Amino acid sequence: MSFRYERPVRFADEDHAQIVYYPRFFHFFHEAFEEMFAAHGIPYRQCLDENVGWPAVHAEADYKRPVRFGDRLGIVVSIARIGETSVTCEYVGTRVGDAEPAVTGKIVVACLDMATMRSQPIPAKYRALLESVGP
Amino acid sequence: MSFRYERPVRFADEDHAQIVYYPRFFHFFHEAFEEMFAAHGIPYRQCLDENVGWPAVHAEADYKRPVRFGDRLGIVVSIARIGETSVTCEYVGTRVGDAEPAVTGKIVVACLDMATMRSQPIPAKYRALLESVGP
Amino acid sequence: MSFRYERPVRFADEDHAQIVYYPRFFHFFHEAFEEMFAAHGIPYRQCLDENVGWPAVHAEADYKRPVRFGDRLGIVVSIARIGETSVTCEYVGTRVGDAEPAVTGKIVVACLDMATMRSQPIPAKYRALLESVGP
Amino acid sequence: MSFRYERPVRFADEDHAQIVYYPRFFHFFHEAFEEMFAAHGIPYRQCLDENVGWPAVHAEADYKRPVRFGDRLGIVVSIARIGETSVTCEYVGTRVGDAEPAVTGKIVVACLDMATMRSQPIPAKYRALLESVGP
Repeated sequence: MSFRYERPVRFADEDHAQIVYYPRFFHFFHEAFEEMFAAHGIPYRQCLDENVGWPAVHAEADYKRPVRFGDRLGIVVSIARIGETSVTCEYVGTRVGDAEPAVTGKIVVACLDMATMRSQPIPAKYRALLESVGP
Repeated sequence: MSFRYERPVRFADEDHAQIVYYPRFFHFFHEAFEEMFAAHGIPYRQCLDENVGWPAVHAEADYKRPVRFGDRLGIVVSIARIGETSVTCEYVGTRVGDAEPAVTGKIVVACLDMATMRSQPIPAKYRALLESVGP
Repeated sequence: MSFRYERPVRFADEDHAQIVYYPRFFHFFHEAFEEMFAAHGIPYRQCLDENVGWPAVHAEADYKRPVRFGDRLGIVVSIARIGETSVTCEYVGTRVGDAEPAVTGKIVVACLDMATMRSQPIPAKYRALLESVGP
Repeated sequence: MSFRYERPVRFADEDHAQIVYYPRFFHFFHEAFEEMFAAHGIPYRQCLDENVGWPAVHAEADYKRPVRFGDRLGIVVSIARIGETSVTCEYVGTRVGDAEPAVTGKIVVACLDMATMRSQPIPAKYRALLESVGP
């Protein structure tokens, strides 16, 4: 059903051009990713404590409208694909009050066994969580 | 002929998993982009002072190997395409001592008139600079 | 009456030592400062749009306990002193569930006219806001 | 004899007010601290690999002049005091070309055994390194 996270754009999220520094949006996406786990019953810290990590193997974003300090940004996370050992997460970021998105993103993460730093099949309870978010 | 920038990976470039936080690489790419201008005679600050901005319209990266605090990362910037009002920059990041890249990236930037915040044809001297970097 | 702000500690707030990177706490303090304005009726962006800036002239912090990814940090802001052209803000950061603070801070900010970049007497409505937070 | 580190101020080191975001200077100080170790024969990563950590217990800075994107900042590190289990580092940051500092700082770090997360007497080779930097 997708998951929505909202955050204010801070004083220092901007760069010299007084718009959000483009790498910051990937950080915003990660905040949304962390909150998605928490909202579905598994605090993101717990993943790591269970040796389940989700490093990005691919990341991309398209920037459509500038976002500025003082805006609020809503980010909708959808799980577009759940593979054997990887997950494709899609993000749509829209300034509160706007109809059209400011930024869209797609991040492919691997499921990593943090003890061995090797990819592993997604454990059942994480698969269930990701399926419940869905596309 | 491409441009190479090298930087140490810092204590706080890592996240809890003790590998570089994936959004950081886009920041590293931007550092390399800034240095590319400086190395070709136009300090990046000067672009902005001349109202020429280069906001990202598309950014992507593929993560192939973990990078860690203590590594040195060499980043090679190539200009893959110079359009009327946009530029495609490619990045290859390799840990010093490695043969294979740790991360590759592609960033498409628009040429913006910062006074009007509208895209503009790339001014001749910037076009010449970008051509001299080349693919 | 002081103002309290709470925020989760994120995956990338930590450094290689897997505790929060010490400069981050000053960022957390600034978030609390921004939220303090908003909670008292003046979104922080509005300050700047009215050419009222609050650059730090002195900042200090004492670190008493490590804070980690997965913790929630409550930050209480008090206004310890309101001068003619400067304000002393005190911060106490405590992990949710702890009795004792993890970090304390004191930031002295000047009131700047952002049009001239010179200090200015604190405008009446901002003085009122700061007084209402109080020590 | 003190140690000097120089770095460019980047596009995104500024905040909305188009001056360096004040917490960034503590990050700059940490970069200088890391480089100080490397310049004296111990890459900072090696400290950590030897379970020697240097968490801040106190940090302070005084901001005297704005620093902006495009400036180069020279940072001089002095070791003001070496105690049994802690070290006081002083920092003076000056824009290249300026006579007067833009920022000064003092950071007290504890010497931590990272295996136990308890403070420890400063190991001899680290004490020698710090003494060679000196006040």
